[in-house]
Amino acid sequence: MTDLIELGKQAKATVYQLGLMDTLQKNELLQKMADAIEAQTETILTANAKDLAAASQNEVAETMLDRLRLTADRIREMAASIRQVATLPDPIGEVEKMWRNEDGLLIGKQRVPLGVLGIIYESRPNVTTDAASLCFKTGNAVILRGGKEAFYSNQQLVAVLQTVLKENGVSPYAIQFVEDSSRATAQALMKLNDYLDVLIPRGGANLIKTVVETATVPVIETGTGNCHVYIDKDAQLEMAVSILVNAKCQRPSVCNAAETLLIHKEVAAAYLPVIEKALKEYNVELRADSHALAIFQEAIPATEADWSTEFLDYILAVKVVDSLEDAIEHINHYNTKHSESIISDNYFATQQFLQRVDAAAVYANTSTRFTDGFAFGFGAEIGISTQKLHARGPMGLMELTSTKYVIYGDGQSRQ
Amino acid sequence: MTDLIELGKQAKATVYQLGLMDTLQKNELLQKMADAIEAQTETILTANAKDLAAASQNEVAETMLDRLRLTADRIREMAASIRQVATLPDPIGEVEKMWRNEDGLLIGKQRVPLGVLGIIYESRPNVTTDAASLCFKTGNAVILRGGKEAFYSNQQLVAVLQTVLKENGVSPYAIQFVEDSSRATAQALMKLNDYLDVLIPRGGANLIKTVVETATVPVIETGTGNCHVYIDKDAQLEMAVSILVNAKCQRPSVCNAAETLLIHKEVAAAYLPVIEKALKEYNVELRADSHALAIFQEAIPATEADWSTEFLDYILAVKVVDSLEDAIEHINHYNTKHSESIISDNYFATQQFLQRVDAAAVYANTSTRFTDGFAFGFGAEIGISTQKLHARGPMGLMELTSTKYVIYGDGQSRQ
Repeated sequence: MTDLIELGKQAKATVYQLGLMDTLQKNELLQKMADAIEAQTETILTANAKDLAAASQNEVAETMLDRLRLTADRIREMAASIRQVATLPDPIGEVEKMWRNEDGLLIGKQRVPLGVLGIIYESRPNVTTDAASLCFKTGNAVILRGGKEAFYSNQQLVAVLQTVLKENGVSPYAIQFVEDSSRATAQALMKLNDYLDVLIPRGGANLIKTVVETATVPVIETGTGNCHVYIDKDAQLEMAVSILVNAKCQRPSVCNAAETLLIHKEVAAAYLPVIEKALKEYNVELRADSHALAIFQEAIPATEADWSTEFLDYILAVKVVDSLEDAIEHINHYNTKHSESIISDNYFATQQFLQRVDAAAVYANTSTRFTDGFAFGFGAEIGISTQKLHARGPMGLMELTSTKYVIYGDGQSRQ
Repeated sequence: MTDLIELGKQAKATVYQLGLMDTLQKNELLQKMADAIEAQTETILTANAKDLAAASQNEVAETMLDRLRLTADRIREMAASIRQVATLPDPIGEVEKMWRNEDGLLIGKQRVPLGVLGIIYESRPNVTTDAASLCFKTGNAVILRGGKEAFYSNQQLVAVLQTVLKENGVSPYAIQFVEDSSRATAQALMKLNDYLDVLIPRGGANLIKTVVETATVPVIETGTGNCHVYIDKDAQLEMAVSILVNAKCQRPSVCNAAETLLIHKEVAAAYLPVIEKALKEYNVELRADSHALAIFQEAIPATEADWSTEFLDYILAVKVVDSLEDAIEHINHYNTKHSESIISDNYFATQQFLQRVDAAAVYANTSTRFTDGFAFGFGAEIGISTQKLHARGPMGLMELTSTKYVIYGDGQSRQ
């Protein structure tokens, strides 16, 4: 079993060094990391081939193989992502506000690294370089624990990054990799409170649930999105169809894709046939409540479970609602607090929806697909937080920081 | 056993109503709560007498009895605190920033309530009204679980607050009290993930440790403060003594009081005798390393444990350090990330200290006693966060909120 305490100590010691690096130094190293990843394409592909071979032997599903598979193009994309992180503004050191209190103290709220981050993820090797570069840019040390399917790929990627660190006089412990992919080690990592400041799981609903239930280290939940599009009685048909099709079909496997359509009863009969026709072009399976079922030409009855399911596929649950109020209630009951959209021309309906729906991102007349760091203008992200503590929505560099109060006095004592 | 799921459901249903109240309504109710607490002084004192009688029978220590004891004056103070919360600005609804992205979406980051908060605390009944008023002002529902020693006091206080809510058409479930003070119920509360958004423990180190280790609900750690004053070689003697005495003696039982003095070797021989004389006026016990021990007239040797101990008493650990670097290393090794101060005339020494010391509040030439919501100008606080996630330092109204992204589009789909 990997000695996590040793990893934790090494990471903590490195945070100190990382905190003293200025932005230029960090950006230069990120550029070098990107160059090294590209230069080492062959060794990375060799390592990846070992993972793919093992996965094939274990008869892993093709979708999983696709997540795991690296190509020269994908490696170039990984390097490009690292370079993009280098171009982003560095939040560390920024003083958000500074004021003088009644005692004459000058109090500043300054951005500092979180410290040591743990990332637990599944089979996508690009998470390794994405997480490492975001953490490095924000002065955090990171301990990466990837899925065992991607073991050799991750190990090689981390080796390349650590070589760059060492060659440039930075401790390789800034980016560490848990070599032991046993469940026991993962569980120990979740309880490494003396060394980890935060733990971020990246992956499917099961992984996230396990981490939330097991970890004693503070966790940021990311990911699951049971997102809704609500077509109001005052929605324009054309806009409603175009947004719904985009939200459902543009990339159904991602967390900000729509899973349920709610439609106001006054427009259901007129709009649903047009919607069915548009969705059929993508072979979307419709799972409808009894009201919608009577209107659709081809649909199956929705079960109670469908309202809570993140299909991540060409499947859409459809429900006819009596009112805006019912739509809001349905969403707040079944959603995962990710992304929700109303399509309506009505000022009051949109305002009500935006205020009352509880989610990281609430949209008026827009596809839910925009919830991500790039679309919001934050650049690369480490995930979409669906919890309310610390960070909500796309988590970019800023969300990987904490603050400290820096106070300048001239001899003040408390009265 | 209290049906926590029922409490959770009631709280969740109420969040919706609280979210629709405007600031004026909330402030009016807070004023009425304060009035009611004062008007019910007799019934509250009667309930408190029952708690005190039970505590006396159980031979509880006098310090604990003092925490538990209410008087007419203390009840007036509780009411005054509620009124103070009413006067604070309401963060809910505030849009921190709003921008247009590349797709023409107008994206705003808006302050929203966290949702349902759990507060687990010990024997001070004033936590009940403080926490309830702060949560109410920020649109959060709260589930309070106080110590069993204060059971009747807390029950009566919550009854008074709930009566005000009911009389004004607000659900009493906005402020709920766990009547069952068993350990099993407390542990169940810590795992009430489906209903609680955050759990905040308020109390001693043991309580906080238990909550952190047991809870699966996101926790904000508050409280423990092993705070240091470092007297640099370039410190002015008079300022150093006055700040140290204030940090140690003005109120030694609180978390922002100093517990260890670090002093540069170049000034130790000259300054420590003056410091000893000043501290002896408060009968401070000195626990010194060998170097300081040789200088003090009356001190005992410090043990390794003393460097990590939050004495909360007239005891001070003292260590002579060779350099600023050693002082920073000692602090980062032993501190609880609360409040740390350097006394120095030297520009570079103070800048190094402020940058490198890892704590919620880092001070130059100031007493550590200033780390609280009132001193920072935030008003009442729910505690001092010593973790890096979500909030760090004094947690006022703003720290009891989350954000959501509110996005106004005009038909955009993702490319």
